[in-house]
Amino acid sequence: MNGPAVPTTGSLHPLGLDAVTLDPERLLGAWQERNAEQTLPHCTEQLERAGNIDNLRRVSTTDGAFRGMWFADSDVYKTLEAAAWELGRRSDPRLRAYLDETVTLLENAQDDDGYLNSYFQTDHRDQQWAELVWSHELYCAGHLIQAAVAAERAGAGERLLPLARRFADLLVTRFSTIDGVCGHPEIETALVELYRVTGHRPYLDLAARFVDLRGRGLLGDEPRFGARYYQDHEPVRDADEVTGHAVRQLYLLAGVVDVAVETEDASLLKAATRLWESAFDTKTYLTGAHGSRHRDEAFGDPYELPPDRAYAETCAAIASFSWNWRMLLATGGHRYADELERVLYNGIAGSTALDGRHYFYSNPLQLRTGHDGSHEDAPSQRLSWYSCACCPPNLARLLASLQCYVATTTDAGVQLHLYAQGHLGTPHGELGVSTDYPWDGQVTVTVTPSEPGTTWTLALRIPGWCTSPTLDGAPVSGGYAEVTRAWQPGDTVRLELPMPPRVVAAHPRVDAVRGCVALVRGPLVYCLEQADLPADVLVDDVRVDAAAPVTVAAGAEDQGAPVVLRLDGHHRASDTTPLYGAPPTTAETDVVLTAVPYFLWANRSPGAMRVWIPAR
Amino acid sequence: MNGPAVPTTGSLHPLGLDAVTLDPERLLGAWQERNAEQTLPHCTEQLERAGNIDNLRRVSTTDGAFRGMWFADSDVYKTLEAAAWELGRRSDPRLRAYLDETVTLLENAQDDDGYLNSYFQTDHRDQQWAELVWSHELYCAGHLIQAAVAAERAGAGERLLPLARRFADLLVTRFSTIDGVCGHPEIETALVELYRVTGHRPYLDLAARFVDLRGRGLLGDEPRFGARYYQDHEPVRDADEVTGHAVRQLYLLAGVVDVAVETEDASLLKAATRLWESAFDTKTYLTGAHGSRHRDEAFGDPYELPPDRAYAETCAAIASFSWNWRMLLATGGHRYADELERVLYNGIAGSTALDGRHYFYSNPLQLRTGHDGSHEDAPSQRLSWYSCACCPPNLARLLASLQCYVATTTDAGVQLHLYAQGHLGTPHGELGVSTDYPWDGQVTVTVTPSEPGTTWTLALRIPGWCTSPTLDGAPVSGGYAEVTRAWQPGDTVRLELPMPPRVVAAHPRVDAVRGCVALVRGPLVYCLEQADLPADVLVDDVRVDAAAPVTVAAGAEDQGAPVVLRLDGHHRASDTTPLYGAPPTTAETDVVLTAVPYFLWANRSPGAMRVWIPAR
Repeated sequence: MNGPAVPTTGSLHPLGLDAVTLDPERLLGAWQERNAEQTLPHCTEQLERAGNIDNLRRVSTTDGAFRGMWFADSDVYKTLEAAAWELGRRSDPRLRAYLDETVTLLENAQDDDGYLNSYFQTDHRDQQWAELVWSHELYCAGHLIQAAVAAERAGAGERLLPLARRFADLLVTRFSTIDGVCGHPEIETALVELYRVTGHRPYLDLAARFVDLRGRGLLGDEPRFGARYYQDHEPVRDADEVTGHAVRQLYLLAGVVDVAVETEDASLLKAATRLWESAFDTKTYLTGAHGSRHRDEAFGDPYELPPDRAYAETCAAIASFSWNWRMLLATGGHRYADELERVLYNGIAGSTALDGRHYFYSNPLQLRTGHDGSHEDAPSQRLSWYSCACCPPNLARLLASLQCYVATTTDAGVQLHLYAQGHLGTPHGELGVSTDYPWDGQVTVTVTPSEPGTTWTLALRIPGWCTSPTLDGAPVSGGYAEVTRAWQPGDTVRLELPMPPRVVAAHPRVDAVRGCVALVRGPLVYCLEQADLPADVLVDDVRVDAAAPVTVAAGAEDQGAPVVLRLDGHHRASDTTPLYGAPPTTAETDVVLTAVPYFLWANRSPGAMRVWIPAR
Repeated sequence: MNGPAVPTTGSLHPLGLDAVTLDPERLLGAWQERNAEQTLPHCTEQLERAGNIDNLRRVSTTDGAFRGMWFADSDVYKTLEAAAWELGRRSDPRLRAYLDETVTLLENAQDDDGYLNSYFQTDHRDQQWAELVWSHELYCAGHLIQAAVAAERAGAGERLLPLARRFADLLVTRFSTIDGVCGHPEIETALVELYRVTGHRPYLDLAARFVDLRGRGLLGDEPRFGARYYQDHEPVRDADEVTGHAVRQLYLLAGVVDVAVETEDASLLKAATRLWESAFDTKTYLTGAHGSRHRDEAFGDPYELPPDRAYAETCAAIASFSWNWRMLLATGGHRYADELERVLYNGIAGSTALDGRHYFYSNPLQLRTGHDGSHEDAPSQRLSWYSCACCPPNLARLLASLQCYVATTTDAGVQLHLYAQGHLGTPHGELGVSTDYPWDGQVTVTVTPSEPGTTWTLALRIPGWCTSPTLDGAPVSGGYAEVTRAWQPGDTVRLELPMPPRVVAAHPRVDAVRGCVALVRGPLVYCLEQADLPADVLVDDVRVDAAAPVTVAAGAEDQGAPVVLRLDGHHRASDTTPLYGAPPTTAETDVVLTAVPYFLWANRSPGAMRVWIPAR
């Protein structure tokens, strides 16, 4: 049983789906448990309610009207993928039945030649393959393939994998000679994963072909969105700036790394690395999120990172996670694991409500008093579903496979990337991890080696945010602290990652947060919420001293925040201040501020929020 | 001959089209001349090239395919309106021929019942009146009516006015009983203007009806844009916040004031005033522009005013000008004249290149180094035309009637609102205005009264930005300085409006420009451009001391900037600075900064620009 994105080459190897158990009493395990108990069932219910399942039924029955987005099938596939990952970590007859029923539905809908897309099979047969720039046909096919790969790795792919292969074989037949790419990347990474579970080289070759066909004008010169939107503005190998629709860009880059690794194409990996630097040096939010513009759901210019109008789509955060995971596996570079952690605890985690059944599509870093929440992509609180419901099932599939991302293995040993209490089975031995991370920085690893006395290396990531880490009491530095020894049963290693609150500022070119500071502790970004302030002290009118001491305090456990931050702030009402010219003249008053983890925002009464706080 | 928006009631009365002559050697007159010689001919050429004229020809011939936006007729009407205003201030056989030919084209295209819309008359006859939310049919009708009103006031409406009335009569017949409003306001103000030139009350009644039908859900619950976009989210009388698509909101408000004035509806004018305060207290750029979001071309939340992603559509600036003009006529309030001036010299003027033939659709207050200029609505330089070409003809019609907005009259005297060298004929006498405004604040008015010795009042606006105005050497204050006397030929009045450079900051809630200052002199906003800096000193990396003295210097007359500003600044390269955490460590160097008027930006080599400059 393998998890997502298992390379046949590359430097690190993931552990299997059933190799890692996360403790449901601790944060990552609790998120995974909530996903299984709330989010995944919610997705299956909503897919039925919103018509996605009926759309597929219609292919046989032709009853009713097609409902939702034309790429609505993809949400069924992502939910199916989530169910498959769940089945890979625990048996569940109900989930297994869901998977089987859905596969039956898909089998009934699939054309004889392997084609499957309920939108084009019903009312739009004449448009099949006619307009790749908008059709999402290859995108949907990609998500079907990813579901099949997950099912196969979970031991439940006996019918879904052949079904997906029939479609993939059709794609190979059709697109090995026709020059065409999808307006929405996704098929690339899916085909490589299919190659990985089948060993069938034409899938990899087609993925490589799709990557190399980009930037050649195949998607036409659509004026409203432009070639960047569709990732068709320049060849991937020439690109040096992430741009256009963020999810499209990041899905493509996940596929690019997959192709680079499997074809051992160093120049392609070099392009991905260059684009990574563009993204993470100039276009990433403090929460790890991407996408600065609502218009086109797109990356902005370098340093264009407005907190209020951050698009920061949940799917883009998940895509960034997938891309960084692949970069980590390909290179072993710690900076990729740092980004996995940052986006997981902030950009991704913030999208889901405490109840697991409400979600943000867009994840801004600021919400003003008086915000117009009438738009679906900028609501004041999480919604239970979306007209374009790509994000919730994407969360479900990531969280269902979350245990796969905490560690990797090589012939030389085991690498711990994310710290979470739980148990790991590796080729080198069993590892028990004891920690309350991210609330506390102590991590104790107890080793039971497969063969006592064998020498191998346990590598523990030192997060980039940590300035004074110690391993068994001794200072360590660098990306990974390594312990090489002849391991005996019961050996322990104790990593200490002190996490005092940090007050951070942004690059001076990030104009949108000039003169502001943000509060961070460990991997968690914190924020101020109106809910923690008196009604007459608007969060919009609060300032802090940049040098004000920030203290750690106990928060409300039942609201998911065992650790909050406190600091002294200042408040000055500004309602009557003119827009330009005179500064506010009302007296400034002191106020004690409480900051809560960003991922918990908007779980209480609706109200203003800000990550970046003006500093005096 | 009357100019735009002549109320039958209200407090101030505009002068006629031929009553004012602006000196073409001075700024406003030069803009009007450039409009006549470059912009208007450019528009007529482009309308032919882009297919707008062919679309109308097709109604009779059905040759070829419809080209451009479905509301492309409106650009023909706005250009026609511009030609009419031009004919009102000077005779021009070529323009007269253009007007006549175009009217012939329209006469040939118009249906027997008065309907006229080349998109719906050709390939989309079945959709006529079927979908008001998107059709722009009433919007286009409104622009046709406005063109006819202009022609009539210019003495050239003998065929165009009856043509427009046939359409307007059809609207009255159809919509006096059917509940329906247009997704894009414009018909409201047009119908009131038509009432003003015809005295035909049903036009006014229909306009009032259209205003009152808004906010009642007649445009349906379109989820992608939402009711605010179409101005259908709440009844106008209840609204207290400008919101949604900025041009739609502002066109509607111009119509609201027109209806309020003509129906003497105080509650409606009160709503317009409340919305004015929402706009100008919390949602207006320093340049007077409106629209903070590219998404939906919309107003943002209060204080959401990003300089880089300012949409600041040229048409919204023109709409704001029209709205403020109507508020001024209705109330005589100086704040409306202040806004006329601000938006004219900055938000509107900045849209046109020095050559008069290139235009910005969107007018940001910042352009970064490395900006992606591939999008039509965020190019790095002005374009010669747009796929949605609403703005250039809108500029043409405003500039062609610019002389109408400098002054008004009442029984009690004459009011000067905008200062421009030229000559005014008023019922009370002739006024010669001598000034180099806005480069210099001296304004001398020489009066030749119609009846020497008659007492009347000359009121001169004291701009809100001016802190030490004098009239004939004596300090004055308030919105207007009034001179009441028994005027004799040759009497002069000398207004002195000192315009030292001002360093302004924004309201502390305008997060996007926190810690920045802007340079303003008189009514002109200034900006820094890369073109004035060495190549290794990026404008993105420049700071100033908020208290640094700003000096006035002579600029390049041939580049349209006789007055520039100079101040000492500091530069620190930040290319290698991490995105979050450590501040840049390279040494700061001194640099002398030159600021040019914002309206002149992007007339030299393409490059970065910023209005708001970070302050130390």
